[in-house]
Formats: sequence, structure tokens, C-alpha cells
Amino acid sequence: MSRSSSSYLLERAWVDGAVRDDVLVEIADGRITAVTPAAPAGDVPNLAGLTVPGLVNDHSHAFHRALRGRTQRGRGTFWTWREQMYAVAERLTPDSYFVLARATFREMVAAGYTSVSEFHYLHDPEPATGEALRHAAEEAGIRLTLLDACYVSSGFGAPPEGVQRRFTDGTAQRWAERVGDGPAAIHSVRAVPRDQLHVFRGRAPLHVHLSEQQQENDACLAAYGVTPTRLLHDEGLLGPGTTVVHATHLTDDDIALLGNTRTNVCITPTTERDLADGIGPARRLADAGCPISVGSDSHAVVDPFEELRGLEMDERLATQERGHWSAAELLSIGTRGARIAVGEPADLVTIDTRSTRTAGTGSDENTAVFAATAADVTHVVIGGSVVATGDDRAEIGRELEAAMEALWEKALWQAR
Amino acid sequence: MSRSSSSYLLERAWVDGAVRDDVLVEIADGRITAVTPAAPAGDVPNLAGLTVPGLVNDHSHAFHRALRGRTQRGRGTFWTWREQMYAVAERLTPDSYFVLARATFREMVAAGYTSVSEFHYLHDPEPATGEALRHAAEEAGIRLTLLDACYVSSGFGAPPEGVQRRFTDGTAQRWAERVGDGPAAIHSVRAVPRDQLHVFRGRAPLHVHLSEQQQENDACLAAYGVTPTRLLHDEGLLGPGTTVVHATHLTDDDIALLGNTRTNVCITPTTERDLADGIGPARRLADAGCPISVGSDSHAVVDPFEELRGLEMDERLATQERGHWSAAELLSIGTRGARIAVGEPADLVTIDTRSTRTAGTGSDENTAVFAATAADVTHVVIGGSVVATGDDRAEIGRELEAAMEALWEKALWQAR
Repeated sequence: MSRSSSSYLLERAWVDGAVRDDVLVEIADGRITAVTPAAPAGDVPNLAGLTVPGLVNDHSHAFHRALRGRTQRGRGTFWTWREQMYAVAERLTPDSYFVLARATFREMVAAGYTSVSEFHYLHDPEPATGEALRHAAEEAGIRLTLLDACYVSSGFGAPPEGVQRRFTDGTAQRWAERVGDGPAAIHSVRAVPRDQLHVFRGRAPLHVHLSEQQQENDACLAAYGVTPTRLLHDEGLLGPGTTVVHATHLTDDDIALLGNTRTNVCITPTTERDLADGIGPARRLADAGCPISVGSDSHAVVDPFEELRGLEMDERLATQERGHWSAAELLSIGTRGARIAVGEPADLVTIDTRSTRTAGTGSDENTAVFAATAADVTHVVIGGSVVATGDDRAEIGRELEAAMEALWEKALWQAR
Repeated sequence: MSRSSSSYLLERAWVDGAVRDDVLVEIADGRITAVTPAAPAGDVPNLAGLTVPGLVNDHSHAFHRALRGRTQRGRGTFWTWREQMYAVAERLTPDSYFVLARATFREMVAAGYTSVSEFHYLHDPEPATGEALRHAAEEAGIRLTLLDACYVSSGFGAPPEGVQRRFTDGTAQRWAERVGDGPAAIHSVRAVPRDQLHVFRGRAPLHVHLSEQQQENDACLAAYGVTPTRLLHDEGLLGPGTTVVHATHLTDDDIALLGNTRTNVCITPTTERDLADGIGPARRLADAGCPISVGSDSHAVVDPFEELRGLEMDERLATQERGHWSAAELLSIGTRGARIAVGEPADLVTIDTRSTRTAGTGSDENTAVFAATAADVTHVVIGGSVVATGDDRAEIGRELEAAMEALWEKALWQAR
């Protein structure tokens, strides 16, 4: 799908915190070399609508896309959902994982995500599963940070069981020997015993699921007498190179520890909603000093704009006040501070400002954050090339359908 | 846009609580005359995807569509948002109201809403504003219940001020003389004094905004010593002909009163989220005996599927448990129990089950409720005619843009 150009004319663009009309962006070697005011010209591709920097998906488990719409029967919690997720994990082979991940990454790109942090814990057989993810991202054209996640215990001290055996290297030390220096993740403080956490000291980037459920906090307190946040802090694992994911159920002390260490916090509003995690203290974490990012996580929804406004909407539901985050702040969270500026990667996302959803909403940052959906993305440029357009979506839908049909063909799932 | 047929072949359809393949629906005089299994046939329009009964938008203020994306600056509450809403109300003429409402109703139809309850309080000059709404709905092809709302006081006992003077008939008695026997609404217990509420006894349908904000409850208790729900009950205004809208902040006694009287409750999740109303006790109200409906209200979002899953997602955030409503229950709420069955109105909504959002999700009621968005609606049939297709959306976007451009052209809004 890749189409490259050395320049694009943006009808309207989000440049340095403000909306500007008629912006010419020039590109060389995948980076922006000039941003200038310009009149429409015949031979330069014209991106009609509002263009913003590429959106960052900072937390993904690609294979969870197979669960969308399939885990909504009957009552339950995060923990019963997890059993259903395991049933999918159990059936994946490197080949089916590749096909599913490629389609999922393509869905992400078409939605406006230009990069993804893939939190990878389904290792067996490694390196084939990791290679499947790398290959899938390459074919989809999305920038990938493959976070190899260490998982050595099921709960505090219990050995992995069932499909969890496909996640584990046995010990953190053996995980480290396999992974070497790459981007890393600790699945959670449930999954790596305290006496093995030292292995991760000094590693960056390092991601970890944190306090998504009160049950994790209770078990951690019972096992070690401290909260998961305090545990990571005391083991020297918080800091600007670390990203904690969810951070839903925190104490005031936890918030201070994360803020003071400038630890990154990734919030996944549409997943936290779907999994009944609760509403975390995102605004307080930002105020305490934590850089914030978002991710589509379980892919119940793949829509960066829905994640961003979810941050604000959840705070509104919790506090009964409006305006916790401005649209500009949310856009900056979504792009992790990326700018349409000289020297930056040429990752651009163009939003239709005249759709049924966006028409009449002002064609500015509020349109992007408070009106647009993934369906409004018309062009996605990554490293200077158009990797997806709105017209590609039908084909991506068929690819997703085919990937999932193969996975569900034995209809085991529906029988559960 | 209207295209009529005496029969449609549905690739897949939600019939009597289950999904069926290859369903032939025959229609005469706008109603379904036969529902039979059928093989594809050349001369019958084939609706590919999953077809469900038409969705009901049970609470709308059409002109609020102009506010989407425009009220997201700065901190505030429902009450500061209301000032911004009044600024739009102030500028509308019957002509601009017609143009805006027609575009908004068309957006609704394209999203899958086949009928709308319009809660109409911007009366001056009446009958021109009411006629503008009727004419707009007629041109958009949506079924309209125009609820003429009585508004005679600003808060408890205070006279209407500013644009509120365009809402009022002076007294409930004069409102009744103007309106006659039609569908009715009490704006709220703030807007009609207790000693005038008797005017509405025995009227149906009767809608009323109820306890959207704690402040209304506090003021009602201060003025009358009872909650708004208890007030309506004691004045004989609850019952199966009454719909209360929001019902966010209720006591246990309020829930019992609403349930025991089988009063309908309309929840508007995307608006309640946007306006920081809080999460109401929707599931408890249903369990107490209240029929539930949803509405797009302020049109921050026009997407029936997002409203329906909002009911479930909000309960999940509030309780940290999943599965409060099944997809079938939610679909039944969204359609108000409509069925694809002989004798029913031929109102049908077809959803693309192979889009980036819906692909692989099972093509059943879970796809409709937990994966689809308004962007997945491919065909909307009302009274036997195709009133909108997915291909009409681009034109509707342009119509919305034109309606709003005219309204915002003086740019008064941005300056506020």
C-alpha cells in the first residue's frame, strides 16, 4: 500500500500548538526537512482535512483483537475474561499469530496509529512468535517497539499453569539470557518474584502492568507488605525509562512515587472500561509529574481519538466536572509530544473535517479529540510514505475477517 | 434519497432474539407482511451484513448538534456548558433551525436511528420553530415524536431570563392552551412550579428531565422538602406513559417509585459522559421495573451502538464487574423491543460485519452492540424505503458543515 512523496500540502495542520492553513511539508529520508506556508500546487499531493502528528499506541497485545465481541456473554470480571483470553493464546501458532497480528497492525495504522509498543508475553515457541510480530509490523508499515515480557509465576509464588507455560522462561535470569539488551517488560509484580526483580534494574525501555485490579494490590500487600508501586520503587525500577500500564488502583503514596521518579504512565481507557478495571487517577498522575500515554491494549476498540477523549470523559464521570485536559494536552499525549517540525519523523495523520462526525466542529484540535473517530482518518503517512488511506479500510476488514475465521473455524470458542 | 421496495433479502438478521441467515422480508404499506427463509434471488435488493430493527433515539435536542467540539475549552460543569448552549439558542431563527435540524436528523438516520423523540423547548417564535422541526424530520425521513416542553421558571421560582424567555409560555396553563393534546414534556421540576404540575396529569407521552445534576435535587429539597422523583410521584405524574430522562442522582426510594409505577427511563450515556453528569443506576432501575431507552441528547456523539454499550461500560466502571446487560438486552433497549416480524413497521438497519471494527467479531448481536459504530451502518430502511446508505454520509457531512458554517459565520462563539 506504500506510496512515497518528498512533499505534502496540508490543507490544515496542527503545528506548534495551533492550527494553520495551507502548510507545505518537505521530507527527506523519512524526516521533515521544511514546514512552510504554501498555496495549493498541482504536483504536490494535497492532504485535505486536518493533519496531526502520528498517534502512538503505547500498549498492545496484538492477539487480543481476536477477542473483540467474543467475551461479552454472561457475568464476570477481569479474571473470567482472562480465562477466555488464555483460550485464544492456547490456539495460536506462529503462523496464525503472524496473520492475526498483521491484520491488527493494519487496523491500527488505518486508525491513525503510526507506532506501537507490543507487550509480548506469548513466547512459546520463541523466537518464532517474536519474529511473527516483527514481520507483521514490517508488512503493516507500523513502527514497532517489541517489548519482550518476562513471566515466571502465576500469581505471587505460584508456578505457571496451562497456557501460562507458553509465557515463561522459568526464571528472570533465563529470560535475560534469551532477550539480551532489547526493550523489556515485566508482565506484572504477580508474574516475577521479588527476588528476581533485580535483573531488570537499569533496563530501558521497561514496561510493566501495574495495579489494574485491586486484587493484585491485595495479593502484593499480603506477599510483601507493600503496594506494587512501592515494590517497584524499592527495587529501583521506577524512573523515566519505565512505563507502568494502567495504574488504576493507587494510593496517594503510589502517585507521589510515580510522579517524583518521572515514571511514564500508559492509560488504556477503552480496555479499562471493557474489563471493568475502574477509573484510574490519570490527571493526578500527570500533575504529580508523570508523562502520560495511551494504548489500545486488548483492542476492544482501536481508535486513538476514543482513547484520548476517554481520559477526559472518565475524569468527568468520576468528578462531575469538565475540562480536566484541554484538547491540545490530549493531542500531545496521543502523539507523545511529536510535532510537525523540521527534524521530526514524517509521521502524519489526516482527519476528514467534513464527515458526519466532524462537520461543523471547528476543524481544530477539538475536532480531532472530541469529534473524530478512527473512521475519519483519510491518510496515514509514516516515514514520508502513505501507508494507509480511508479507501484501504474495506480490504483491511476482509483481512481481519480471514485471520479470525481461520482462528475460530473449529468453533471451540462459541461452545464454551 | 428514498428508494422503496416490496421486499428485501437480509444476508443475516436479528429475528426473535437470534441471528438467522438468508431472511426474506416482505413489506406492504410500510409494514412487514412476511418473514421467511430464502435463497438469494436476483431481483430482490440484497442487504449484506447483519440487519437489526430500527434504533430509537428517545431524547434529542436537535440544535445542540451545533455545540459538538465547541464547548470543550476551559474548566467547568454542566452549568457552564448550559451558558454556551444558550448562546446558540439565542442565535437560531426558524430558518437556521430548520437547516440545522434537517442535517442533524439526517446524521441520525445514517447512524441507524429510525425514530426520534425531540424534546422541544426553544419555542419563540411558535409555531414556526415547531414547524421547522416537523419539516426537518419529514425531509430527513425520520419518524418524529415532537415533545412540546413546558418551561416557565428558571430554577425554583425564578423568572426566565435571557434566552430562557424564548422557552416560556408564561404559565403551564397557557402552554396547555397552545399545545392542545399533543406529546408533551415538562422541561424539569426546576422549570415548572409545583402548583402548576397538575396541568400535566393524565398526559402521555410525557417526558421530563430528572435529576441529571445533584444541584437540581438539592434545590428541589430546599424548595419542596422532597426529591424531584418524589415530587413527580406525589403530583401523579409517574407511570407507563411517562419517560424520565437521565435519572442520574437517585435515592433508593426514588428508584422504587420509578420502578413500581413502571415509569420509562431514558439514559443518554454519551451526553452524561460529556456533561460530567455522573453514572446513573440504569441496571437497578431496570431491575426495579422501569423500561429503559437511550438517546443522543446533546449530540456530542450520534451513534446508537455507542449509547448502548455505554450503558454496560459505565456500569463496569462503577462496579468493577462485567456482564450487567447482555447484548440481546441492550439491542432490545435500543430498538424499544421492535422486532423483524409480521405486522411490525418495516424499519431495518443493516450493519457491515466485515469492517475494520466488526470483522471477526461473530456477526451476531455482540457485533452490533460491542463492536459496531454508526460508521458501520450501510442501509437504513424506514417504512419500507431505503432512507440512507453508507454512501450518503459524505453528502450529509457537507450538509452539516453548511448548516454550521452559516450559524458560526460571525464567529461570535470563538470569541467568548
